Amino acid sequence: MLRYGLDIAYQGTHYHGWQIQNNAHAVQHVLNNALSQILNYPVETVGSGRTDTGVHALQQIVHMDLTNKIDTTHLIRSLNAILPLDIVVKKIIEVDSDFHARHSAISRSYEYRITSLKNPFLIDLAYYFPRKLNVDNMNKAAKLLLKYTDFRSFCKSHTDTPHYFCNITSAEWIEQDNLLIFKITSNRFLRGMVRAIVGTLLEIGLGRIKLHDFEEIINSKNRQYAGAAVPACGLFLTKVVYTNHFL
Amino acid sequence: MLRYGLDIAYQGTHYHGWQIQNNAHAVQHVLNNALSQILNYPVETVGSGRTDTGVHALQQIVHMDLTNKIDTTHLIRSLNAILPLDIVVKKIIEVDSDFHARHSAISRSYEYRITSLKNPFLIDLAYYFPRKLNVDNMNKAAKLLLKYTDFRSFCKSHTDTPHYFCNITSAEWIEQDNLLIFKITSNRFLRGMVRAIVGTLLEIGLGRIKLHDFEEIINSKNRQYAGAAVPACGLFLTKVVYTNHFL
Repeated sequence: MLRYGLDIAYQGTHYHGWQIQNNAHAVQHVLNNALSQILNYPVETVGSGRTDTGVHALQQIVHMDLTNKIDTTHLIRSLNAILPLDIVVKKIIEVDSDFHARHSAISRSYEYRITSLKNPFLIDLAYYFPRKLNVDNMNKAAKLLLKYTDFRSFCKSHTDTPHYFCNITSAEWIEQDNLLIFKITSNRFLRGMVRAIVGTLLEIGLGRIKLHDFEEIINSKNRQYAGAAVPACGLFLTKVVYTNHFL
Repeated sequence: MLRYGLDIAYQGTHYHGWQIQNNAHAVQHVLNNALSQILNYPVETVGSGRTDTGVHALQQIVHMDLTNKIDTTHLIRSLNAILPLDIVVKKIIEVDSDFHARHSAISRSYEYRITSLKNPFLIDLAYYFPRKLNVDNMNKAAKLLLKYTDFRSFCKSHTDTPHYFCNITSAEWIEQDNLLIFKITSNRFLRGMVRAIVGTLLEIGLGRIKLHDFEEIINSKNRQYAGAAVPACGLFLTKVVYTNHFL
């Protein structure tokens, strides 16, 4: 068997997330089917991590094992012809047999995009939030995240994670192209973590949560004290980093 | 009665076009309902022209008659709060009683957007057409359109138009932000006209129709000789111009 890594992007609007679950329409399912159809034997892929229903990926890294050496350029072309328009394969490379899309990843980056102007063309690609925000305070709170390692307060309650430790290496709000964008990088993320953090930071931007209360929320290790999760449409997985492979 | 003009934009993906038809989900229907709900009496709007199912508008101009003077800023805010995210009201102004969104318009402009790269985030907003095109020839053909006035060759066969004359004042292809965009302005457009012209110009770009054959197609006044219509997702109504009013 030869192991290959794929770099793909997708608009998540019409999918029940990345990961195959019983009968749900998942990106992974559509990708596996396309690969199996082209290669004529069952192919299964492993992703760097889940994305939830409606969440997008500018870069999702995936690995798969194939029985024979393949012409990657040709496979990219065939896949993109078969895959629906909202999934694109950007790159395929042969990787070491011990490369693992999930376990070998050393960091993931996400963006959360907010538009304060009602824009019909961003309906599925940004969260429309027309309230006045104190972005300075939101950035002060974002910096505080880097002081902590246990993010249980921002994790969905029903989850199978063995622990709640994350090493967040950057977190900031920037304004770009009429959007307000939260960018965050961590070695790992808990389920619902980015959307819960963004929801809480918006409360800070509105002045409803103070900065010192934000630290108390983190310390509480209780999801109930954090803000409501923001909608999936604004969330993008933007980058997955590995030591030896990719990109 | 006082007459008002509205400047609106919408993503057409989830609508059966602008114009109300029996039971179809039309933008006009949603707008009339929102106005009637806010103002508490039945309001009907008249648009500058139809847009087909899935076609977008960066600017659609609409007029309506109201029984009383209204606070336009307030009405814009109320409308945008009630209207779905894919319809936005940008401006409302009081207009003369003889202003008519359709009859008073002196020109309309459309854009047709093509992406040669598969881009999951443009699935509803551009036509994915990954073939190599001779854009110079497409622009030469576009210029030829300005020599003619009868565009029956690009009109859907079942239409109630009294004549096929259009005064096209500009037509060109430009490359911008990784898109290939066809921009066209005319006093009026026939049903399906832009999409049939673009389909024919793509045949020229592919070398399958020659420039002199293009003039024969125009002269034939027969829809069968022109190229197939391109999909609705790439088409945007971008501007409607009036002498005395708007914008």
